[in-house]
Amino acid sequence: MRGALKIAIIGGGSSYTPEIVEGFILRYAQLPVKELWFVDVEAGKHKLEIVGNLAKRMIEKSGLPIDVHLTLDRRKAIEGADFVSTQLRVGLLEARKWDEHIPNKYGVIGQETTGPGGMMKALRTIPVLLDICKDIEELAPNAWLLNFTNPAGMVTEAIHKYGKVKSIGLCNAPIGMQKWLMKKYSVPAEQIYTEFVGINHLHWVTRAEIGGEDKLPELLDRREEYSGKNVPASEWDADFLRSLQALPSYYLKYFYMTDVMVQEQLASMKESGTRAEVVKRVEDELFELYKDPNLQEKPKQLEKRGGAYYSEAAVNLMDSLYNDKRDVQTLNVMNGNIIDFLPQDACIEVNCIVTAQGPIPVALTKVPEHIKGLMHAVKTYERLTIEAAVQGSRDLALQALVHHPLVPSVGIAKPMLEEMLEQNKPYLPNFFK
Amino acid sequence: MRGALKIAIIGGGSSYTPEIVEGFILRYAQLPVKELWFVDVEAGKHKLEIVGNLAKRMIEKSGLPIDVHLTLDRRKAIEGADFVSTQLRVGLLEARKWDEHIPNKYGVIGQETTGPGGMMKALRTIPVLLDICKDIEELAPNAWLLNFTNPAGMVTEAIHKYGKVKSIGLCNAPIGMQKWLMKKYSVPAEQIYTEFVGINHLHWVTRAEIGGEDKLPELLDRREEYSGKNVPASEWDADFLRSLQALPSYYLKYFYMTDVMVQEQLASMKESGTRAEVVKRVEDELFELYKDPNLQEKPKQLEKRGGAYYSEAAVNLMDSLYNDKRDVQTLNVMNGNIIDFLPQDACIEVNCIVTAQGPIPVALTKVPEHIKGLMHAVKTYERLTIEAAVQGSRDLALQALVHHPLVPSVGIAKPMLEEMLEQNKPYLPNFFK
Amino acid sequence: MRGALKIAIIGGGSSYTPEIVEGFILRYAQLPVKELWFVDVEAGKHKLEIVGNLAKRMIEKSGLPIDVHLTLDRRKAIEGADFVSTQLRVGLLEARKWDEHIPNKYGVIGQETTGPGGMMKALRTIPVLLDICKDIEELAPNAWLLNFTNPAGMVTEAIHKYGKVKSIGLCNAPIGMQKWLMKKYSVPAEQIYTEFVGINHLHWVTRAEIGGEDKLPELLDRREEYSGKNVPASEWDADFLRSLQALPSYYLKYFYMTDVMVQEQLASMKESGTRAEVVKRVEDELFELYKDPNLQEKPKQLEKRGGAYYSEAAVNLMDSLYNDKRDVQTLNVMNGNIIDFLPQDACIEVNCIVTAQGPIPVALTKVPEHIKGLMHAVKTYERLTIEAAVQGSRDLALQALVHHPLVPSVGIAKPMLEEMLEQNKPYLPNFFK
Amino acid sequence: MRGALKIAIIGGGSSYTPEIVEGFILRYAQLPVKELWFVDVEAGKHKLEIVGNLAKRMIEKSGLPIDVHLTLDRRKAIEGADFVSTQLRVGLLEARKWDEHIPNKYGVIGQETTGPGGMMKALRTIPVLLDICKDIEELAPNAWLLNFTNPAGMVTEAIHKYGKVKSIGLCNAPIGMQKWLMKKYSVPAEQIYTEFVGINHLHWVTRAEIGGEDKLPELLDRREEYSGKNVPASEWDADFLRSLQALPSYYLKYFYMTDVMVQEQLASMKESGTRAEVVKRVEDELFELYKDPNLQEKPKQLEKRGGAYYSEAAVNLMDSLYNDKRDVQTLNVMNGNIIDFLPQDACIEVNCIVTAQGPIPVALTKVPEHIKGLMHAVKTYERLTIEAAVQGSRDLALQALVHHPLVPSVGIAKPMLEEMLEQNKPYLPNFFK
Repeated sequence: MRGALKIAIIGGGSSYTPEIVEGFILRYAQLPVKELWFVDVEAGKHKLEIVGNLAKRMIEKSGLPIDVHLTLDRRKAIEGADFVSTQLRVGLLEARKWDEHIPNKYGVIGQETTGPGGMMKALRTIPVLLDICKDIEELAPNAWLLNFTNPAGMVTEAIHKYGKVKSIGLCNAPIGMQKWLMKKYSVPAEQIYTEFVGINHLHWVTRAEIGGEDKLPELLDRREEYSGKNVPASEWDADFLRSLQALPSYYLKYFYMTDVMVQEQLASMKESGTRAEVVKRVEDELFELYKDPNLQEKPKQLEKRGGAYYSEAAVNLMDSLYNDKRDVQTLNVMNGNIIDFLPQDACIEVNCIVTAQGPIPVALTKVPEHIKGLMHAVKTYERLTIEAAVQGSRDLALQALVHHPLVPSVGIAKPMLEEMLEQNKPYLPNFFK
Repeated sequence: MRGALKIAIIGGGSSYTPEIVEGFILRYAQLPVKELWFVDVEAGKHKLEIVGNLAKRMIEKSGLPIDVHLTLDRRKAIEGADFVSTQLRVGLLEARKWDEHIPNKYGVIGQETTGPGGMMKALRTIPVLLDICKDIEELAPNAWLLNFTNPAGMVTEAIHKYGKVKSIGLCNAPIGMQKWLMKKYSVPAEQIYTEFVGINHLHWVTRAEIGGEDKLPELLDRREEYSGKNVPASEWDADFLRSLQALPSYYLKYFYMTDVMVQEQLASMKESGTRAEVVKRVEDELFELYKDPNLQEKPKQLEKRGGAYYSEAAVNLMDSLYNDKRDVQTLNVMNGNIIDFLPQDACIEVNCIVTAQGPIPVALTKVPEHIKGLMHAVKTYERLTIEAAVQGSRDLALQALVHHPLVPSVGIAKPMLEEMLEQNKPYLPNFFK
Repeated sequence: MRGALKIAIIGGGSSYTPEIVEGFILRYAQLPVKELWFVDVEAGKHKLEIVGNLAKRMIEKSGLPIDVHLTLDRRKAIEGADFVSTQLRVGLLEARKWDEHIPNKYGVIGQETTGPGGMMKALRTIPVLLDICKDIEELAPNAWLLNFTNPAGMVTEAIHKYGKVKSIGLCNAPIGMQKWLMKKYSVPAEQIYTEFVGINHLHWVTRAEIGGEDKLPELLDRREEYSGKNVPASEWDADFLRSLQALPSYYLKYFYMTDVMVQEQLASMKESGTRAEVVKRVEDELFELYKDPNLQEKPKQLEKRGGAYYSEAAVNLMDSLYNDKRDVQTLNVMNGNIIDFLPQDACIEVNCIVTAQGPIPVALTKVPEHIKGLMHAVKTYERLTIEAAVQGSRDLALQALVHHPLVPSVGIAKPMLEEMLEQNKPYLPNFFK
Repeated sequence: MRGALKIAIIGGGSSYTPEIVEGFILRYAQLPVKELWFVDVEAGKHKLEIVGNLAKRMIEKSGLPIDVHLTLDRRKAIEGADFVSTQLRVGLLEARKWDEHIPNKYGVIGQETTGPGGMMKALRTIPVLLDICKDIEELAPNAWLLNFTNPAGMVTEAIHKYGKVKSIGLCNAPIGMQKWLMKKYSVPAEQIYTEFVGINHLHWVTRAEIGGEDKLPELLDRREEYSGKNVPASEWDADFLRSLQALPSYYLKYFYMTDVMVQEQLASMKESGTRAEVVKRVEDELFELYKDPNLQEKPKQLEKRGGAYYSEAAVNLMDSLYNDKRDVQTLNVMNGNIIDFLPQDACIEVNCIVTAQGPIPVALTKVPEHIKGLMHAVKTYERLTIEAAVQGSRDLALQALVHHPLVPSVGIAKPMLEEMLEQNKPYLPNFFK
């Protein structure tokens, strides 16, 4: 793939698009993009045009020889692409609202990447991604599919199991951790080494070295609040955190402090609606800004959304694949033998070196005992969910739900599942044949 | 160990003792017991005398040449024994009461073999059992230690990890399942084949064949209530049960219907106190009966306790070990390679063939996906608990609690742990040095 | 499969047939055979008639209601069968002669179940067995296929990998060991427990208990000659044998004493031709005997062949499958997790309990270090051979040969392979398309 | 270990010393060495002085502030060291001569890193290295031990199993491959990616990419002779090589072309003595050169020895450890889960990223079937050898020999072992207590 690269961004009408455009501009020297295709579905056409035109203005201002294409024809965008990136949302923010709202009604965490909400998003998204894979297999068999679409772990695992494309799942949490450490210790990225163990949105950092020195005890002792924009703010218990000997992902609050987190969700919903509704308002504001024909750069306000550094993570990955950089990145890849208690074809989120032929996971040097059961419990839910999505099986969906650590019982899972399936009917052809 | 066998029963003052005595009488032809030693601690002396004298009367009536010894000298009982069996309860029923009561106060399942209560029982019991192992290593190095002491899985795992005696963990649930199927299908035990997958008090039956024919679908479809005496009676959801493609242990109700089970526990406690208190009353009645100098057999009322068939399971096992029978029994043994996602030194509850040199586990032919995460989650709690018990570590005890699927959060686990440790202070020398 | 059983014996014209007939007669009470079908190919018609008529006379003499059928129509024999047993030899003894002769020419062990000869036999046999499987899948999908056809390990592994029938591989070596121990210690089979570790024709006995007592050290110390009829007689080195802490299969002499065994083969060939030619003479004599219309029983002379107890092993297995006996038998089955360094779908020869639903392997309690590399080396050759057979690949066949421990170098392997392929051309359609 | 580094070179009197000195001089900017200690045993004092003085002259010429120390006091050299490197040879070249000569007498490959010779070298060397480890544990517990001493794989595995120091095994074959590819394709090291699978002196290169492009088929198709100085020159069979789909280490010729290699060894020995004797003459010449007080640099003639690039490999590794470079290097490290059929504590030779906290192995992306058995066979020999060395066990040594693929039989192994043990008596205190 030497020379002029073609990139296809599926879900190009996303409010994140200006970020990735900025990324391509900044990294042009290493990553000579020639064609940038933004594709979206009919329902997203209006947003695609707004944000696509902003993209064009940004490129124009940069003076770089990159052609921007906006299209509703996915196959045209994919044909001959070197990289395909997915940032789509089946059912839009409306569907996310229900992913959050319905579980909350049953006293359960409502979250679009894990638990009942994550399952529904997976059921909606996996068939669409497998469809995209078929196009890539046919039209761009050598392309890399970079999957940002949540739940990224389940979607990536499904693609590897049921598709034939070369695919990598990507999340912004690892790069977020890096940025936080860079700032905290005033060091460049090269001086930081962190070891991630886990699966998407359920990882622990078991090593954190700055300039080769172990800083983990210090980070566990005096942990300044490190939290994601899309997760409420409850404090960690200091003793517990220290005893873990690992920095948990902020998503782990849902598991370690379930009761508090449910209460915060319910309170926050009362005050400002679901997170989906908050995001919707932020997005609406963003699109208002994007419309401004004088705007030629990514607006600051975009950072309010949870996906900070997403584009940097994406461009880093493309850069390393294209340039065979072999640097260490934390990615969602197939397990192989890395985590010995998970199946070889399970998707995990771990350090990899990125070669031109793809990422190769790096062995884990520490897997604390406490991690194992929880990780396996959530992976079991993920695998049941993937099969449920592919088969359209209510039985498997119920099993997935009941076995998720955040779902308290069959008695709750069953009516909740029924309500969620009904609400998502338009997006679940496998379930409503 | 040909010929005249010496058996040591530690915790001989238990109300179960008449059962095991009956077992030895009935199986005398296969298992020629010469000496039967019942040993207990000072605090249990009174009960030991009552039940021990009943044992003597039972033997006398049988006319068999078995000598019954009652003693407080554990070493004397163990010396030269062929089989040592443990049925002790550190802290007596009083301690169990708190195992059930304190978690309930925090809205958590209170149960003496899993969750917070199971952890406390393990913390009290493991050091005592390891101490007994030292005596056996010294005084009866070829003896088999049959461990009935709950939580049998954790205790057996600790013995294998930290002791050097030949030990097997035993539970009455598998034989209970067998008895139920025998009755249901009017067949002898030899015509039943069941495959157990799991760990102690957390197993699933994935095969159930009668005369070689698969009856599992039938059992899942129309499951007559099969429940233990010490577990409340809530009904299984029929769809869910069918979808599992495996018969879950009745202890799994705690995990699959947590909310209902907590409610039942709270209601039942209000009405009749904790299960420990109910058992205490049953026991008091039993000992009243045992005192009767005319009683020469096991009274019917003993069956009200949860441990039905315990003695039959024990005598079956001794018989097969002694006679190299190689029949299939479901036992608690070291995993080895049987369950590929658990460590080799984890204790699991699976089918074994019992040879004179010990049980050998049999491969599993089915491990449904849904089983894996939950089993691993509870095993993680068990391993953390064992380390906590051996090291006297609060950190590990907190981790064990937080990672148990029945404990909702760190916020609840922490004060609950403090209260339980304080309550158990006399039995936790490792924690209060 | 209650009641009147139908058995199909493929390769019914074999000289072993009277053994299996005798077996059915002796075990009739447990195994109520109704129809016994002997099937062979056109080239074996003459032998089929001779031995088939003897079978009829044997049944007649027994007075049992068993119908004997002789046919060249394989599909008719298979249709509705409960058990299908294969004892065929593709290319007859003539092919075996070359399996032994060609390697010998190159100074290499010539043996029909391992090394170059074993590979050629596998290349000839696997496609035929896979073809038989297709018939069984269609005409008797519930039948058990008992595979006696050598190389039994490779053939069974190929069937499991590429076929869909329920199949078990069977060898007479384990029952031979049992018979030897029964005689040596004057005990019934029930008092013997041996643990087999390995693969077909490459196993070690790591436990040998008589009445529950460990006799392995004694057997290793003063090993009376225990050797197969088809393996030359060289003595074991006593020190080496003791150091192994396991009784090696007599086939292991080929690996441990390669030089001596090659010399013995060459000397023996000079004197009396290849083993195939010796066997041919024995067979010719047998068939002369079989022709005698007054002969109504298995003649003593049959025991001169190497396959002693084959029929007893076969009937034992059918009996346990039919009657759900759950006794321990040493069989060739899929590995699963039993041997942790071999693939799950590798065929291994280990102890199993035999249930009505099939054999379940039993965990290994001892795997001496020295076993691992050699077993894996031969398994690698087996796996490469199976793929070579299925794909008709010379590259894989060459790899298989070079990686077999008995083949000294590429330089020898290459011309030897060419000569063997050429010699076997009629039986290798995959290789000569 | 910031700042002024202390390096201890054990076996400092080696003829390789000028190479490593040159390495430190060239890499000074990245690796600020302050003290360079060369230590040797009494018998090597003369050589230590000669080569040590050359080292001093080289440093002087460089003008760098490095202090060179020559000593016979190992503890003084080790105390407080940052890196300890071992390049010693127990028994000197005289012992190597017998490692080569005795096996040859029995018609077996005589080689100092594998087979009978490799075993003897391991038996002599492992106890000495474990002794050095004790000093390091006491006097420089944070030091990295870089082990170059052959057989590097077995020695490194023994250190990890029985010592407590941080240790890495190193071989020059991987860097040799890199240099060859750099020259062949005229590219810098950064553009080459090779994947190594295997164990020390028994590896295969399964990926070879230049600038991200797969060059393996090309390399297999037209393989220019790539061979080590210490391995005879026989040509690979082109078909066989292609079929392997992996570039074998040149040591694999011993396994794939055993007969030819034995003949070459015997012929070469007749002509010029064992390889040890050839090396001895090269060394004598080198030391004559080293004596020249005007010599201030590494002489060209040093390259005649087999260890080309050893020093570059060593300095690369120290540089990456010191500077936390995280580049990919091929090293001898503990397996963990990387090769799923070998034990976790087996030493393997694979790609690692080198962090300040040590190397972390990278997952394997391809493990051809044919590799498995041979690698496991040699690993079995290695593990038996390590135990033999530690226990001084003749039984285990015999087992190790018999199970090595290059040893044809027990009959040959036994007298050969006796003769080798006798010849090495002064260096085998464990065996002659």
